[in-house]
Amino acid sequence: MKFSLDIAYARQLDQQDELASFRQRFVVSAPGLIYLDGNSLGRLPVAARERLETVINHEWGDRLIRSWNEAWFTLPEQVGGKIARLLGAESDEIIVADSTSVNLFKLALSAMYAQPDRYKIVTDNLNFPSDLYILQGVCKAANGRFHDGRSPYIQIVPSADGIHGPTDALAEAIDENTALVSLSHTAFKSGYTYDMAAINELAHRAGAITLWDLSHSAGSVPVDLNGANADLAVGCTYKYLNGGPGAPAFLYVRRDWQEKLNNPISGWMGQRNLFDFGLDYKPASGLRRFLTGTPPVLSLAAIESGVDLLLEAGMDRLREKSARQSDYLIQLWQELLAPVGFRLNSPRNLEQRGSHISLGHSAGWQINQALIQEMNVLPDFRKPDNIRLGIAPLYTTFEDVWTAVNRLHAIVVQKRYENYSLASSHIT
Amino acid sequence: MKFSLDIAYARQLDQQDELASFRQRFVVSAPGLIYLDGNSLGRLPVAARERLETVINHEWGDRLIRSWNEAWFTLPEQVGGKIARLLGAESDEIIVADSTSVNLFKLALSAMYAQPDRYKIVTDNLNFPSDLYILQGVCKAANGRFHDGRSPYIQIVPSADGIHGPTDALAEAIDENTALVSLSHTAFKSGYTYDMAAINELAHRAGAITLWDLSHSAGSVPVDLNGANADLAVGCTYKYLNGGPGAPAFLYVRRDWQEKLNNPISGWMGQRNLFDFGLDYKPASGLRRFLTGTPPVLSLAAIESGVDLLLEAGMDRLREKSARQSDYLIQLWQELLAPVGFRLNSPRNLEQRGSHISLGHSAGWQINQALIQEMNVLPDFRKPDNIRLGIAPLYTTFEDVWTAVNRLHAIVVQKRYENYSLASSHIT
Repeated sequence: MKFSLDIAYARQLDQQDELASFRQRFVVSAPGLIYLDGNSLGRLPVAARERLETVINHEWGDRLIRSWNEAWFTLPEQVGGKIARLLGAESDEIIVADSTSVNLFKLALSAMYAQPDRYKIVTDNLNFPSDLYILQGVCKAANGRFHDGRSPYIQIVPSADGIHGPTDALAEAIDENTALVSLSHTAFKSGYTYDMAAINELAHRAGAITLWDLSHSAGSVPVDLNGANADLAVGCTYKYLNGGPGAPAFLYVRRDWQEKLNNPISGWMGQRNLFDFGLDYKPASGLRRFLTGTPPVLSLAAIESGVDLLLEAGMDRLREKSARQSDYLIQLWQELLAPVGFRLNSPRNLEQRGSHISLGHSAGWQINQALIQEMNVLPDFRKPDNIRLGIAPLYTTFEDVWTAVNRLHAIVVQKRYENYSLASSHIT
Repeated sequence: MKFSLDIAYARQLDQQDELASFRQRFVVSAPGLIYLDGNSLGRLPVAARERLETVINHEWGDRLIRSWNEAWFTLPEQVGGKIARLLGAESDEIIVADSTSVNLFKLALSAMYAQPDRYKIVTDNLNFPSDLYILQGVCKAANGRFHDGRSPYIQIVPSADGIHGPTDALAEAIDENTALVSLSHTAFKSGYTYDMAAINELAHRAGAITLWDLSHSAGSVPVDLNGANADLAVGCTYKYLNGGPGAPAFLYVRRDWQEKLNNPISGWMGQRNLFDFGLDYKPASGLRRFLTGTPPVLSLAAIESGVDLLLEAGMDRLREKSARQSDYLIQLWQELLAPVGFRLNSPRNLEQRGSHISLGHSAGWQINQALIQEMNVLPDFRKPDNIRLGIAPLYTTFEDVWTAVNRLHAIVVQKRYENYSLASSHIT
């Protein structure tokens, strides 16, 4: 088929989409809503709603405490094992626990503890700011451990254009003092996606450990943790994994690291024989040692259904559809939106792109408001001017993409954004 | 009324119970089940089931990302503010976040950071072991910060009888090197409950900070954090607060400490103006600085309904009923269970007692198994020999207490426990 600006072309692409039926596996209660924020909060899977009904009424309501043995105690490994299949890891290399930020703290600090001769953490300025804040806390907690009295610090390598990851500059920054290289695999603003294997090799050549944040790539781009020889990773489950609002996060520790690293937030769920209630902490074998407290069961149980859908669809097919959709979006941008002042704030090279596209515009915040208030389109917005359009191939249609672009175009040519103030609120 | 061993007496007490109707506010799907484990997992409130239905279908399913602004962003303070009313704190002194263990880590480490001249943590051996494990991690993370090169350490003060808190020995242990006194307010095994004001005074006289774990006292005994001049506290919401399995925990920081302490796990939810996405961590004002990552919304939202029920019933009335029920249980123990080998592993003095009673027996584990498998009674068991009978006055009846005691008696006199092995499993 030949590209066309006509909606008929979008509809044709949808008709030919072999993953189209997955949209029905989600609750889509307002069919007119164009939801392009699955990169921030995935939709509710029908199966998750059913699972939660069981967890709430049967497991909590009827079975009560017995459900710990019958259903809940092994959920962190069970859900983690499924996420592992999505991410090219062994089933005992991923476990679900806490939030992404807490997991990052645990893994980063454990890596610092394991390398008392190395005091530098290397990251970039495309990283999610929370990761940088956490690493600041890690430096503080790791302080005082270095043979020569040095204080640990973070080197933030800047991106040249704010869009692409600074791979060459990272190569220079990673040296014999580097303990840890901690990056977002897919950047939250631009969607730039690192060549994970290449960065791991850079780090390993210098003797450093890598710690990836997969929050924007899990379920959106192919990830092969083992194949890329990654050391450590964390990620969230409420974006492309459709785990539900604030659902607990996952952490990955490659098998050969599991017995070498210790959880610095050593709580009872990571204790060997926790029901012996010994007074000394003795880490459990394997990944359970990276658990800390009792997990939030309702939010944890909801994750599994979303991951099941991704496994059923297959990451290769999902990536293929996501790529076609983002290519289509970029084509539409070039024809309709670039002429009215929108910039492409995401990489053009598909290899470097996640599953969301950021469009910049000098009136970006106002345009985003008009889109939400008048146009029934839900993207999200990241300062200073990024309108993020998230493609979730399990439920995003080509017609969604067409409609969003045409409404963005209409807002600008009709100057409808002028009705909105410049002030920004906290979450959109 | 005069105490009697007859079930008619228990039924009379239930008829006179002004809180009896609260039982109907919970899902009680198996009326024959004697549930005495509300000290481990509270029952499902009917209102929580309804609230979850709304959160899942309307807030997640329909409103999607918009619910962050419409409902979710302020939930940590909103639920925390209600818990504060139960615990004698101001509404801006308690916030819901993470697990009890993670919160303990955050507050304990922040207190260590704030006192670089003091390197000792004082606790007791009645404390929940997870708290001790966490404090071990805190010592490791705080290491290297002390002016004279000392390493921080934990002094675990032993209880003389394993039941009562060692207040006098604590008074000796708390000295000018003590940074932190960290205790369970109500002990998880014996139910011993400290005089919080007295310990706070001991600590303050030595210039130390107190950090209370309220997991077994929140919702079970009157707690007056401000009145007792407590500095810091944490606690879980899934026991007497009926927040649901693994529901996130709360933390308390007295107002005058809030700007002096900093969250060592500094994540984006605690950042001032988090949606500016600045690269440097700047703590939010007030308690939000002690948030870290995105909270598990389903598990968080479920907490509120349980807390509402406690507020409606009132802690004074709840304590009064709990006291009558535990007194009744102890009377029955004395008449029926002491003669067949059961020991009272909880304080006899009501002032020192929480809302659960531990009974010891040389065949405790086997008796506990018989109780669950044959008798439709659900207590829980804590090694070596504690059968914990939890009284949750919102839904526990006097007849429940009578029935449990009579079944315990029957198991021993009929030697029904002999059918069960000595091996213990992980959670009961």
